[in-house]
Amino acid sequence: MLPSLSEEQVRALRRVGRAWGRVSAAPEVWRRALPVEPDVGSFPASAEASPAWFGRLVPLSPLRARAAEGRPGPEAAVRPEAGSRVRRVLIGAPLASSAFVKERMRKLVALPVLSADVLSSVAYAPEAMLAVLVLAGTAGLAYSLPVAAVVVFLMLAVGVSYRQTIRAYPHGGGSYIVAGDNLGPVAGLVAAAGLMTDYILTVSVSIASGIAAVTSALPGLMPLRVPLGVLVIAVLLAGNLRGIRQAGTLFSAPTYAFVVAMAALIGYGLVDAARGGFHRTPAPEVPVAETVGVLLIARAFSSGATAMTGIEAISNAVPAFRPVEWRNARTTLTWMLGLLITMFVGIVALIHFTGVVPTGQETVLSQLAHLSFGNGWFYVYVQAATAAVLLLAANTAFNDFPRVLSLLARDEYAPKLFLRLGDRLAYSGGIVLLSLAAALVYVAFEGRTNSLIPLYAVGVFLAFTLSQTGMVVHWWRLREPHWRKSLVFNATGAVLSGLVLLTAGVSKFTAGAWAALVIIVLFLLVTTRVKRHYTTARETLRLRPHAVELPACAEAGPLAPAAGAAGASPADRETEEIPEEIHHLSVIPIATLDLAGMRTLAYAASLGQPALAVHISTTEEEERRFRAYWSLWGDHLPLQTVLSPYRALVAPLVHYIETLHRLNPDLTLTVILPEVVTRHRRHQLLHSRMASRLRRALRHLPKIVVTTVPFHLPY
Amino acid sequence: MLPSLSEEQVRALRRVGRAWGRVSAAPEVWRRALPVEPDVGSFPASAEASPAWFGRLVPLSPLRARAAEGRPGPEAAVRPEAGSRVRRVLIGAPLASSAFVKERMRKLVALPVLSADVLSSVAYAPEAMLAVLVLAGTAGLAYSLPVAAVVVFLMLAVGVSYRQTIRAYPHGGGSYIVAGDNLGPVAGLVAAAGLMTDYILTVSVSIASGIAAVTSALPGLMPLRVPLGVLVIAVLLAGNLRGIRQAGTLFSAPTYAFVVAMAALIGYGLVDAARGGFHRTPAPEVPVAETVGVLLIARAFSSGATAMTGIEAISNAVPAFRPVEWRNARTTLTWMLGLLITMFVGIVALIHFTGVVPTGQETVLSQLAHLSFGNGWFYVYVQAATAAVLLLAANTAFNDFPRVLSLLARDEYAPKLFLRLGDRLAYSGGIVLLSLAAALVYVAFEGRTNSLIPLYAVGVFLAFTLSQTGMVVHWWRLREPHWRKSLVFNATGAVLSGLVLLTAGVSKFTAGAWAALVIIVLFLLVTTRVKRHYTTARETLRLRPHAVELPACAEAGPLAPAAGAAGASPADRETEEIPEEIHHLSVIPIATLDLAGMRTLAYAASLGQPALAVHISTTEEEERRFRAYWSLWGDHLPLQTVLSPYRALVAPLVHYIETLHRLNPDLTLTVILPEVVTRHRRHQLLHSRMASRLRRALRHLPKIVVTTVPFHLPY
Repeated sequence: MLPSLSEEQVRALRRVGRAWGRVSAAPEVWRRALPVEPDVGSFPASAEASPAWFGRLVPLSPLRARAAEGRPGPEAAVRPEAGSRVRRVLIGAPLASSAFVKERMRKLVALPVLSADVLSSVAYAPEAMLAVLVLAGTAGLAYSLPVAAVVVFLMLAVGVSYRQTIRAYPHGGGSYIVAGDNLGPVAGLVAAAGLMTDYILTVSVSIASGIAAVTSALPGLMPLRVPLGVLVIAVLLAGNLRGIRQAGTLFSAPTYAFVVAMAALIGYGLVDAARGGFHRTPAPEVPVAETVGVLLIARAFSSGATAMTGIEAISNAVPAFRPVEWRNARTTLTWMLGLLITMFVGIVALIHFTGVVPTGQETVLSQLAHLSFGNGWFYVYVQAATAAVLLLAANTAFNDFPRVLSLLARDEYAPKLFLRLGDRLAYSGGIVLLSLAAALVYVAFEGRTNSLIPLYAVGVFLAFTLSQTGMVVHWWRLREPHWRKSLVFNATGAVLSGLVLLTAGVSKFTAGAWAALVIIVLFLLVTTRVKRHYTTARETLRLRPHAVELPACAEAGPLAPAAGAAGASPADRETEEIPEEIHHLSVIPIATLDLAGMRTLAYAASLGQPALAVHISTTEEEERRFRAYWSLWGDHLPLQTVLSPYRALVAPLVHYIETLHRLNPDLTLTVILPEVVTRHRRHQLLHSRMASRLRRALRHLPKIVVTTVPFHLPY
Repeated sequence: MLPSLSEEQVRALRRVGRAWGRVSAAPEVWRRALPVEPDVGSFPASAEASPAWFGRLVPLSPLRARAAEGRPGPEAAVRPEAGSRVRRVLIGAPLASSAFVKERMRKLVALPVLSADVLSSVAYAPEAMLAVLVLAGTAGLAYSLPVAAVVVFLMLAVGVSYRQTIRAYPHGGGSYIVAGDNLGPVAGLVAAAGLMTDYILTVSVSIASGIAAVTSALPGLMPLRVPLGVLVIAVLLAGNLRGIRQAGTLFSAPTYAFVVAMAALIGYGLVDAARGGFHRTPAPEVPVAETVGVLLIARAFSSGATAMTGIEAISNAVPAFRPVEWRNARTTLTWMLGLLITMFVGIVALIHFTGVVPTGQETVLSQLAHLSFGNGWFYVYVQAATAAVLLLAANTAFNDFPRVLSLLARDEYAPKLFLRLGDRLAYSGGIVLLSLAAALVYVAFEGRTNSLIPLYAVGVFLAFTLSQTGMVVHWWRLREPHWRKSLVFNATGAVLSGLVLLTAGVSKFTAGAWAALVIIVLFLLVTTRVKRHYTTARETLRLRPHAVELPACAEAGPLAPAAGAAGASPADRETEEIPEEIHHLSVIPIATLDLAGMRTLAYAASLGQPALAVHISTTEEEERRFRAYWSLWGDHLPLQTVLSPYRALVAPLVHYIETLHRLNPDLTLTVILPEVVTRHRRHQLLHSRMASRLRRALRHLPKIVVTTVPFHLPY
């Protein structure tokens, strides 16, 4: 987290240090003058480091509790923050950084974990394809086999293409990295935009499809579709904030269960069809809404192609494999591709033979299972396995989206808060953002899978295309052994992905693909502006060799208040780097001479810097009375009263302080405010919010330091 | 606004002053040491004091603009706060305190202004009474004249009773004051609770009834009833924040117009009836829902009695009359009573003769006007005058509610923010609260007058009863001349009001009166707890003679850092009153050695107090690296690094600072934080919110002062 200093900055640091050295006391003096022993033990003290019972802010409470035991006082009743306790229950105890060890996965574990996304799409992609074709009635349905064949060819091409990526990027080659590395940052950002919309839609589509699997079995739940889906997203959110890792046997169960279910379904169905001599049951008559045309076929094709979403998962996760990583990853990719194609072809063939057509009420998969297994337990098993694998697929996005976002944040294209690992070593910010976006999309489309699909294809194939094109450039540049073969494979993948992208973009433009375009443009706009802000901010904050102008009285001794004019340091430049460059004036806005006010005055005076008290009066009578009290007290500090006929308190104070600054731009004004702090937040309403209002108003003025001196009410 | 100091506090102030005097430099020294001329001119500068063009925070902008003219810089683009400009448009330019002169009203102006509330209730009270009776069909309607007669008797009794109040409280005798003065604070609070619910309901009922007058004429607006009502409340809110005064000829127009309309309506109707030999048109057959019983009659009576709401207005406003105030006020009250009784009796008689019954679609008044004037312009005039006087009645509550609330705040029963006069000399807090409550009630009851009436009577008659009972006690105590007569009048008023209160409370308990009870109990609970908080807070903040324990080195010279032990000042007691009692340690949490960090270090060192830098590292490697940079810089300040394996930054810092405090309870720790401030608020998201998070976390720890050193990014 600590950025490294460049050579130039180290030089600047040294120079500043030398300037301090000339005028400041030696470190030994400083250290001796320290009234405390700075080392108070490690955090947390080793005795309380048991992670199981260690909340985020809990280290505070044992200390307070211990202190309270000996000597009851107002602090005895301080409980750990309510928010903190809620977090504990929902999210669990924090984990130390050292728990962040990468588990290496065996191929048989990696396969189900990494392919849940792509394999689960068999549950909705064939249906989405048919849902387009059926618009043209029986004539349309006749095209299902040819369109499926093209999809399978595409799967092969893209799969082989990703085999090349795995070899070239053994440390993980996500589309953002590959496109950014080879095609430049803008291509990387476009790929990231595609990927991130893809992940959001993966969550929405998978959950919509999973809920459809459940409502097919239990039609009574149909009206609860939307709240159920939101509930599932909330559960995924909480689970992922707890830091669920994808690895582990538990997570491989749903995928294998789904594969078994599909194998049984397809096997039983095909045997049944073979027994009947592969006779086709004709599809029921459906109303014809469109005629068969290129656009319809194209739309059906791009819907079917969504079966490929998630195919890139293995290429991202190469380092998670056991050594030799890239070789194991490639093998796993081949297995996954085999499973995907078998299942996709099997389902499409089964639909073809049984004449099942999509309805809004029951999924095609559920209809097929009903045909084969009736209403028995195996039907329930098929539906449960489908729902489980879809849930797991949605969970995949909860790992991938925050990771891409953290890569963007690392490269300063996204707010750095997305880099922050939460208590449970998950990127909390990204997880929350994904949940919100996915829930929004889900609710907006009322959880209907087929309405979501048109949005889906564009993002996915945009990322595919850019990633594969990046690989082509990669091979061309490096010309490693076998580069020609790899280049050809990747070029094929790129061209085909590009064609699908075009097809999807054109044929579904009005159905939602335009939204993807808008999102990508907005994404580019925001990320580049974020980058620009960070770049200029870093530039501004950088230590740089600038001439330190020492005041004339520098030789007056260590830390003598430098009252003289500070050379030509221009106003509002907050560039002071050594103590002697800072010329103080403390301003103490004081309303009443009570204990809090007196303590603030004493605090200001004890700093030993010039101090000035300011009182705002709304009437002249009040002004006179305050001056009288002030001289009763002894007139120990200079007092300025300001008459505010408009009864405002903040505005005249800000005006006064700003005017002081304008007239004395070389001074650093320290505004010292008393602040009454109540024990309970609701009581704070009963007291003046002066301190926070003034802090907010002064925030944007240069060279004004705000100090709040608290006074705690004991209840 | 400045509270007066008691004798004891003045002594404490003197003593503290003498303690400062013994050890601090003389005032001349302080004043000479001041690097600025504190007097920067008045606020606002006289040249820009033109109130017409003077916004709440605008004095800042001319200054900035002037500065920017000479020398373009980052501050050139600072515009006046957006919120401030919106306020200007909606609320207008602020008014000086001196504009707050009470206008004295002639009787002929006072009458319409102060009686709008009570006279306008003629528009709904007879109808509300009939709406109950009609539930028993024709048999029920027969009781309308006797019930009305009892209401009139009540009006007379209460009116005469209030004549006594006017004489006894020439400075304004609201129920809160009268009941509180004579029956004790709890009775005062109960009366205030009654009054305040009354004012909220006055707004809701008057607007509901006013909108009903409009929709009777224009039935097409019926479905827009709820949004229209909310719009009217919003307009009243804005108008009253601008500080509309009730006085003035403009405000007497609606009441006189209404009186004229009613006179014409009743006169025309009675002449018509006389011509027909006072023959009664039989009422149409209505379905009978209930039988005539005591409870029904009681409900009808308490609904009819709502005609008296607002009768107390004149007794509150005695000082607004021209001298001799109380005599003029009494005369006006008598006139008002005469008008009220005439109009009430006239309308009930007219209803009796014409056989009109309440319907949900058209008000009774509109039906009567239709019968007399058809659809002509006089019908429109009657409806318009009714709507206008009801609007004025609602506006009355906008003056009264905040005034009662400010009385409560003055007595510390309500948050002091309700004492604050806004820019336009209106109690903004109370006005906003009333608008919100009234809008809530209005929307909850969908703007139906007859649903709101049951809630109404309880609050009104509670306040009446307590006020009159208070007067009885008043006369009994003082025994001024004629006290016996006044006591009898007030006792009659009290007993009758009490009976109505009982009647309303019992007969309408389930219809909404229970809510009034709940509200009153909650109100008592909240106000007494607020009072308790303020009392103990004032007690804690009071200056009191406590032994100032001067440190041993007090004679070491002015402002020598008092490094010795500070006697037995117990930890967490924030009672230091003289500079020498405060022992400093500055703690500088530092993350990176950039310009903002270096400036913070320089600021801390320049204070000349012991300082300690703290760095939180998440890994040991980072810790080593930071220490290396620190020694590169020259090790000018003591550095403590804290390892935080849980990646948290705020928790370990708070833990460290709190431990330092526990180990050294006599030290005042000043936590000095760098804070990067961006030009646009949206960019602030891109930077660490460390400073504000730490400020919030440290807020509740004793003796910890938080200082933020801003670093402004120039964009």
